[in-house]
Amino acid sequence: MAALSTADHELHVRRLGLDTQHEAVVLMRDDCPVCRSEGFTAHARIRLTSASRSIIATLYQVSGTFLGHNEAGLSEAAWRRLGVVDGETISASHPRPIGSLSKVRGKVYGERLDASALTEIVTDIVGGRYSDIHLSSFITACSARPLDLDEMIALTGAMTDAGDRLSWDAWPVVDKHSVGGLPGNRTTPIVVAIVAARGLTMPKTSSRAITSPAGTADAMETLAPVNLDIPAMRRVVEHAGGCIVWGGAVHLSPADDTLIRVERALDLDSEGQLVASVLSKKIAAGSTHVVLDLPVGPTAKVRSDGAAAVLSESLTAVAEAFGLKTRILVSDGRQPVGRGIGPALEARDVLAVLQTLPDAPADLRERAVTLAGALLELGGAAGEGEGRAEAMATLRDGRAWATFQRICEAQGGMREPPRSFHRRPVPARRSGIVTGIDNRRLAQVAKLAGAPDDKAAGVELHVHLDTRVEAGEPLYTVHAETPGELDYSLAYVAANGDIVEISGD
Amino acid sequence: MAALSTADHELHVRRLGLDTQHEAVVLMRDDCPVCRSEGFTAHARIRLTSASRSIIATLYQVSGTFLGHNEAGLSEAAWRRLGVVDGETISASHPRPIGSLSKVRGKVYGERLDASALTEIVTDIVGGRYSDIHLSSFITACSARPLDLDEMIALTGAMTDAGDRLSWDAWPVVDKHSVGGLPGNRTTPIVVAIVAARGLTMPKTSSRAITSPAGTADAMETLAPVNLDIPAMRRVVEHAGGCIVWGGAVHLSPADDTLIRVERALDLDSEGQLVASVLSKKIAAGSTHVVLDLPVGPTAKVRSDGAAAVLSESLTAVAEAFGLKTRILVSDGRQPVGRGIGPALEARDVLAVLQTLPDAPADLRERAVTLAGALLELGGAAGEGEGRAEAMATLRDGRAWATFQRICEAQGGMREPPRSFHRRPVPARRSGIVTGIDNRRLAQVAKLAGAPDDKAAGVELHVHLDTRVEAGEPLYTVHAETPGELDYSLAYVAANGDIVEISGD
Repeated sequence: MAALSTADHELHVRRLGLDTQHEAVVLMRDDCPVCRSEGFTAHARIRLTSASRSIIATLYQVSGTFLGHNEAGLSEAAWRRLGVVDGETISASHPRPIGSLSKVRGKVYGERLDASALTEIVTDIVGGRYSDIHLSSFITACSARPLDLDEMIALTGAMTDAGDRLSWDAWPVVDKHSVGGLPGNRTTPIVVAIVAARGLTMPKTSSRAITSPAGTADAMETLAPVNLDIPAMRRVVEHAGGCIVWGGAVHLSPADDTLIRVERALDLDSEGQLVASVLSKKIAAGSTHVVLDLPVGPTAKVRSDGAAAVLSESLTAVAEAFGLKTRILVSDGRQPVGRGIGPALEARDVLAVLQTLPDAPADLRERAVTLAGALLELGGAAGEGEGRAEAMATLRDGRAWATFQRICEAQGGMREPPRSFHRRPVPARRSGIVTGIDNRRLAQVAKLAGAPDDKAAGVELHVHLDTRVEAGEPLYTVHAETPGELDYSLAYVAANGDIVEISGD
Repeated sequence: MAALSTADHELHVRRLGLDTQHEAVVLMRDDCPVCRSEGFTAHARIRLTSASRSIIATLYQVSGTFLGHNEAGLSEAAWRRLGVVDGETISASHPRPIGSLSKVRGKVYGERLDASALTEIVTDIVGGRYSDIHLSSFITACSARPLDLDEMIALTGAMTDAGDRLSWDAWPVVDKHSVGGLPGNRTTPIVVAIVAARGLTMPKTSSRAITSPAGTADAMETLAPVNLDIPAMRRVVEHAGGCIVWGGAVHLSPADDTLIRVERALDLDSEGQLVASVLSKKIAAGSTHVVLDLPVGPTAKVRSDGAAAVLSESLTAVAEAFGLKTRILVSDGRQPVGRGIGPALEARDVLAVLQTLPDAPADLRERAVTLAGALLELGGAAGEGEGRAEAMATLRDGRAWATFQRICEAQGGMREPPRSFHRRPVPARRSGIVTGIDNRRLAQVAKLAGAPDDKAAGVELHVHLDTRVEAGEPLYTVHAETPGELDYSLAYVAANGDIVEISGD
């Protein structure tokens, strides 16, 4: 149809500031000449071509005067991918069929996906050629027709190849990853500090929160800048042996970001996609030795020890195919870790552990030391069975804290996490033993109080499972930056029964 | 969260005239108080509550001044479902989880869907609670884990129960359905006329084009009004024994319309969903005897005789479970039927057959008479093996034509299909035998010429497979209402090689 791009079919682009996440969306009038002559209908996938680029976008049609006859309103994703400026003209046409969708259909009907099919699919996903409907179908098909080992290896390779790839002069290059986060489980800054202090190289990229009250990058940002590009990240790692930066500036496995959002909407975690998601980022980051933490619990991603065993086997086998050494730790995933939930509150827990303060949360320290110990052993910096003790020693004698400060300075300067202006404790309604904590609703309380955008907002938990409390004693304190957010969060608490369950005497 | 709907969280609705098809979409500023306090992120599913109703919509966020801080821009689907007027206030909150999605996930992992699960799923789909991502997952799961007979029956029942249901005093009530239309295959008006002339009751509802150049309702509308409500439809059927009206005013299986659009985007036709789609509409329409036409061909929906046999068995068994008598005809689906492609051009073919004109398209007459004959036998109006001859006699002696005119008058008055103002023949580039006709691209030529919105626009085909043509002889004529559309359509013809293939001498 390119032959038909006459002046009649030119459209002036207009930036709508519309955030549709990864999906490119274009708005046109239903009575515009292009829609009429091309026979476009609402929800059609159409090809937009600017002077320099061509993308596929989902069409929504509008009636009325909100857009002109020759205007194309673009979502942010479409605007970015097309690389246009305001008022520039583009043309619109029917796209060629997306070849790799026939491979997805094949998988739906039980065919295996080989490496070339998965490369095609991942290339089309990264190129923005799949709509949400197509992404959902691919994810569902990989759950209904589980990927075998060869397919997992091929998908991991395709996802790795679709993005940037880092390489390091050092060897080994270590990393850690926790599958299915628990609120407050902020071990990464501690682990990096310990293993870097012992001479291992750990160039860590972390994510920001998408639906949680804080990601590692959000918490770390209250302690030091995290928006570093690759050259800046290299300088930090050369200077301090490790870093904790935001992965958003580094496109290590761009297909993963797109897939994860749709997986979340579906609440589907296929083993194959989980393995490829985790390992493609590690391989692309240039890691050689990786410790993987699998928390098991009723509200964690991995629900049983049996499921953890199956997943461990796949992770290990796929990692081996790429020459990546792994060690897998299965941990308790029944409740939040530490005390803070929210960026600054979690950062304070991290500081307390690194500074070996007497009231530092013991569970967070225990997890961090276990993970760091496994990494020390795996990376050859400690003998087998001695990693945990070595890690604890590195923490206790202040080497980890010194290394952490060096990392923060190298990233742009260490800073003090902000404190909230408005706080209110939520008291126990009865005396007894804590028998349950609703992770999901507690995270919601933190979000309603402003986290992660308001860095100081969140929840400070004063109890854990099996703690004995008296009626009226505070169970947790809500932190907010404005009185309105505090009230709003507490209204949710009042309307939502016992988020911390207490069994009576 | 209803307890939290304070004035802070009220939004003024604004109608955007945005056609997103079935999906309810709401636009809000990313910095609006509701998004901040609720922690809504782009693409979240959120609950909107007006004075009278509550719906779930997909959130897109906008930056800049296009919306006010307290405005919620609504798509047409959201506007309709919420039942609001401009400037009315609504509130927004987190929705409760959609319970039936866990049933979809169960199906993904291989669990069977029982009747109550399918009822829940279909109810949520009709209630607009599924996003496109969820719909795609359900459709994919039903293809990857094919529905067994009990599941097909349960899905058919759930889809039937989700909409309106017609009942008739007459018995039998007959209907016909063609699975996977071929361009020009416009037998319905002829079939209704023949069987109604022979005393059977045939209250036919038909669709408009979605992606084709004409639906039966579009073609019929050039001959008589088709926008009848149920009481008007009843009057026509009582007076004339049959009708051919637009099904859009009658909600016989509302889940089907939603599912079909996503199935089309995925190009997935699971047998179970096809069976439920076809039969739920027939059962809801009050039909008792149905003839189903399965065209088989490389570009038809059913690709082989084997596939037709499997599908026939399921259709028959599910129909039987609802007391519906069926007869299935397998037909040739390799090329367009008749000569006209486009509303008025197809209507003219129908008229030529009904008026027994000497140049009426023989293939269209043959198909219509075969289907009508099967219905006469199935409905007890002709002896076994005598239906076809009886149908032909009813056509030849003018009874069908008289009945058709009576139906048109009862629907609001018969009229003459419009004629195009601008036509141009496309000549054969060489002499030889027609060996192939690209249905898909020929339909595209008709759409570019203006069909179905421009009723007179389309393509008039002068050849079929195996026709001998001389170089320069017209293969087909493009009809348009404006010179611009004619040129545009012909530019597509010029750019797209031989749509009609001719093998040289």
